[in-house]
Amino acid sequence: MTLERFGTTRRYSDSVVHNGTVYLVEVPAAAEGDIASQTASLLASVERLLAQAGSDKTKLLIVTVYLADMADYDGMNAVWDDWVPAGCAPTRACVQARLANPGWRVEMAITAAA
Amino acid sequence: MTLERFGTTRRYSDSVVHNGTVYLVEVPAAAEGDIASQTASLLASVERLLAQAGSDKTKLLIVTVYLADMADYDGMNAVWDDWVPAGCAPTRACVQARLANPGWRVEMAITAAA
Amino acid sequence: MTLERFGTTRRYSDSVVHNGTVYLVEVPAAAEGDIASQTASLLASVERLLAQAGSDKTKLLIVTVYLADMADYDGMNAVWDDWVPAGCAPTRACVQARLANPGWRVEMAITAAA
Repeated sequence: MTLERFGTTRRYSDSVVHNGTVYLVEVPAAAEGDIASQTASLLASVERLLAQAGSDKTKLLIVTVYLADMADYDGMNAVWDDWVPAGCAPTRACVQARLANPGWRVEMAITAAA
Repeated sequence: MTLERFGTTRRYSDSVVHNGTVYLVEVPAAAEGDIASQTASLLASVERLLAQAGSDKTKLLIVTVYLADMADYDGMNAVWDDWVPAGCAPTRACVQARLANPGWRVEMAITAAA
Repeated sequence: MTLERFGTTRRYSDSVVHNGTVYLVEVPAAAEGDIASQTASLLASVERLLAQAGSDKTKLLIVTVYLADMADYDGMNAVWDDWVPAGCAPTRACVQARLANPGWRVEMAITAAA
């Protein structure tokens, strides 16, 4: 068994790789700004974390998108649709949920092939 | 690494298969009707997607059930309990969350063995 | 393909093991008490389920924490931070969601290496 962690604190890791699969959860870089800027900063972080784990955004498997306000659905998707490589979209759930930091408008849990 | 996608649009895929595991997210066929009919149509779609990915409902691993209203818990379970083959139930989380389409009463994220 | 289930009822299993990965969802032992006692009882159950599946809390991959009230975030984390072995924290999402039993303050969905 191989199990590799990145960015591990007492509470959580940025990502964990096991058995050819990488798991990561990301939030916006700052708890301010609109859904476009927050989604963009979050997805930029995701790209860095995927690269660190030996993966990339062509290998997404399943993504859960948590929106603090479902009114941001179109705004999040506008950034998402441009970010996902053509033909490589993961399966995806999107639900509204209150997040840990009231300034965050979006959080994503991602599973990808490593 | 094998990675196969089904029903891929710019935004998401119906299902993704990787390393012997299939990931899929499904919603009701129509954004109307009661929880019984929506759960039934959703699970019928799940069966088709599982078959397409080389899996079936005896191989469910973990399911997350999102209900727009937790008052639908018993109604969803009545359909679910009849649908899951005896002895094959996955581990399952069930929470209330506002969904992307206000007419949807249920959404499910599913991981199964392929 | 190996696929092993534990604690299977008509509706769900306590845990499912497939391909070197264990999936489980847990809630508090009782639908009463504060967030500290509920988180502690939940995590004690998680340890038992992980052991039953041939895993342990040093092998956590990704955890989704559902809190009935985000005001319990610090209380949940106080127990969590003490429970997770140093250097072994999984990646983790934490969102607020109404749960199936109104007495539950927390529910966790866990993926771990088996």
